[in-house]
Amino acid sequence: MLENNFSLPSFADVQAASARIAPHACITPVLRMRSLDRLAQCTILFKSEHLQRGGAFKFRGACNAVLSLDPEQARRGVVTHSSGNHGAALALAAQLRGIACHVVVPEGALASKLKAIQAHDAVLHHCAPTIAARDAKAREVQAQTGAHLVHPYTDARVIAGQGTAALELLTAAPDLDAIVVPVGGGGLASGSLLTAAALAPGVRVIGAEPAGAAETLASLQRGERVTEFTPSTICDGLRGTLGAPNFELMRRHAFEVIAVDDAATLTAMRLLWERGKQVVEPSSAIAFAAVLAERERFAGQRVGVIISGGNVDLDAMPWSPRATQ
Amino acid sequence: MLENNFSLPSFADVQAASARIAPHACITPVLRMRSLDRLAQCTILFKSEHLQRGGAFKFRGACNAVLSLDPEQARRGVVTHSSGNHGAALALAAQLRGIACHVVVPEGALASKLKAIQAHDAVLHHCAPTIAARDAKAREVQAQTGAHLVHPYTDARVIAGQGTAALELLTAAPDLDAIVVPVGGGGLASGSLLTAAALAPGVRVIGAEPAGAAETLASLQRGERVTEFTPSTICDGLRGTLGAPNFELMRRHAFEVIAVDDAATLTAMRLLWERGKQVVEPSSAIAFAAVLAERERFAGQRVGVIISGGNVDLDAMPWSPRATQ
Repeated sequence: MLENNFSLPSFADVQAASARIAPHACITPVLRMRSLDRLAQCTILFKSEHLQRGGAFKFRGACNAVLSLDPEQARRGVVTHSSGNHGAALALAAQLRGIACHVVVPEGALASKLKAIQAHDAVLHHCAPTIAARDAKAREVQAQTGAHLVHPYTDARVIAGQGTAALELLTAAPDLDAIVVPVGGGGLASGSLLTAAALAPGVRVIGAEPAGAAETLASLQRGERVTEFTPSTICDGLRGTLGAPNFELMRRHAFEVIAVDDAATLTAMRLLWERGKQVVEPSSAIAFAAVLAERERFAGQRVGVIISGGNVDLDAMPWSPRATQ
Repeated sequence: MLENNFSLPSFADVQAASARIAPHACITPVLRMRSLDRLAQCTILFKSEHLQRGGAFKFRGACNAVLSLDPEQARRGVVTHSSGNHGAALALAAQLRGIACHVVVPEGALASKLKAIQAHDAVLHHCAPTIAARDAKAREVQAQTGAHLVHPYTDARVIAGQGTAALELLTAAPDLDAIVVPVGGGGLASGSLLTAAALAPGVRVIGAEPAGAAETLASLQRGERVTEFTPSTICDGLRGTLGAPNFELMRRHAFEVIAVDDAATLTAMRLLWERGKQVVEPSSAIAFAAVLAERERFAGQRVGVIISGGNVDLDAMPWSPRATQ
């Protein structure tokens, strides 16, 4: 799907997305946490996408894609595959436009995230947890329903939508030295790169990637996209495979990646809950973990950290001793 | 202590406190949560004091009291009794001024709150969990050290400091219909009443009090302060006995109280965590619970809800099925 024949969005597409989603998306707050600044030895501005509608930045891209459909396309609904946040975001965006939404979910997805997808009236289609099975099932649903595919991170409209988070962050805080974002398939990262390159070329955009799913780091080192790997990480939102357009944007814009092990991510997550008082998911906490892991790289700087989402199952928090009993 | 010979602060004291604590305290954000608005059928502005230094509004009053001391008083340090947040707030304020702090803590106080007190170098003094034992131990420490007593909620400087939260809220959102605050000893409630009466007399100030510790409601109904009762509530910050100056301010300003049972508070707490993505303590969630409990009273209105604090023990959350195993 779009793998070898993709279109790349431009910053103008990010600006258009910003206007298109404005009636529906929140301008999320940028939170400061003094005690976390002291720990990290830098000034962190937390762009709080866990306070976005649907509890994650994913609503930006999904909403932009759904609102970009012409009436004839929209009439047949949308379909995607997603382990969680993108599925719920697309379901919400489709619900707001009053069109059908089909979500292909791999076995093993978090129950709380499936619940969120269903809460917005989307139809769930289960499949095996492999890329091939997801693609096959999505094509099957497309063939049956005529629904329009909105890929979770390679879709140009999705990438442009995700870029609006960095757009708001850089508008609120134009004097940043760096922006750190979680990296899974690369939608948020590539959208942020587009925005920073156009709006604040001096701002480095740095990805935080699970050490157990670091195919983006490997791809950049090797100079070609690595697609064969078995992810092993608690960051359920970051297990996807780096997309082709995402990789292309990363190469063009000198993207840097920090690999973070799960233990460091869980420590950062606990700090965000306990001191920051923010309910964030592991796939979000990893960006703060990257800043803590490489203190000298960020020392004394002003660092934007995008908290990408806060959808967790409260009854099964992985850092609680009780949850492991 | 000050029970029969108290002084009442004025709104000018709140304004002075605001200027005095400005270099140290945060102007906390006012958060909006669309899905909670829909549930409550009104527009809620959450004044987020769990994002205050020390994780609770208590820093406002403690900081104002410590900074109000003349150098001779300050030299001998401060003492208080507190089950948690006020103790930690006073310890932090004393640490910032570089003076000693003694905190008398009743048996049964939350371990995480004691840890926070000790993290700011205060000296802990343990006592039995009764008002009499707390008073006796505090007097003993005073006699031994010459430390200046800063009562957690009857102290006029503390009440004035707590009034600055409503001052910021009404400055950010002058068009509120009501402000709902948790009620324990009455420090936050009486400070909020002072501020609203001066700044926005049309705004009702309403207290949310645990049904199992509803001596404020009983006191207002009876027309005299009820001090004999045994609190039974999970809201560990709201077990204190309504103070005399606090009661006096409540009577003067037509304070209203809603009694909320613990089950409703826990439901509201879970909503604030799960949908609002905010780590709040039960003693804070009660204010949102009161709005949910009396939907018709607030329907269609603009309601300020002060989230008073977010200091919980993550490993022992009372709403988790695991925590009760």
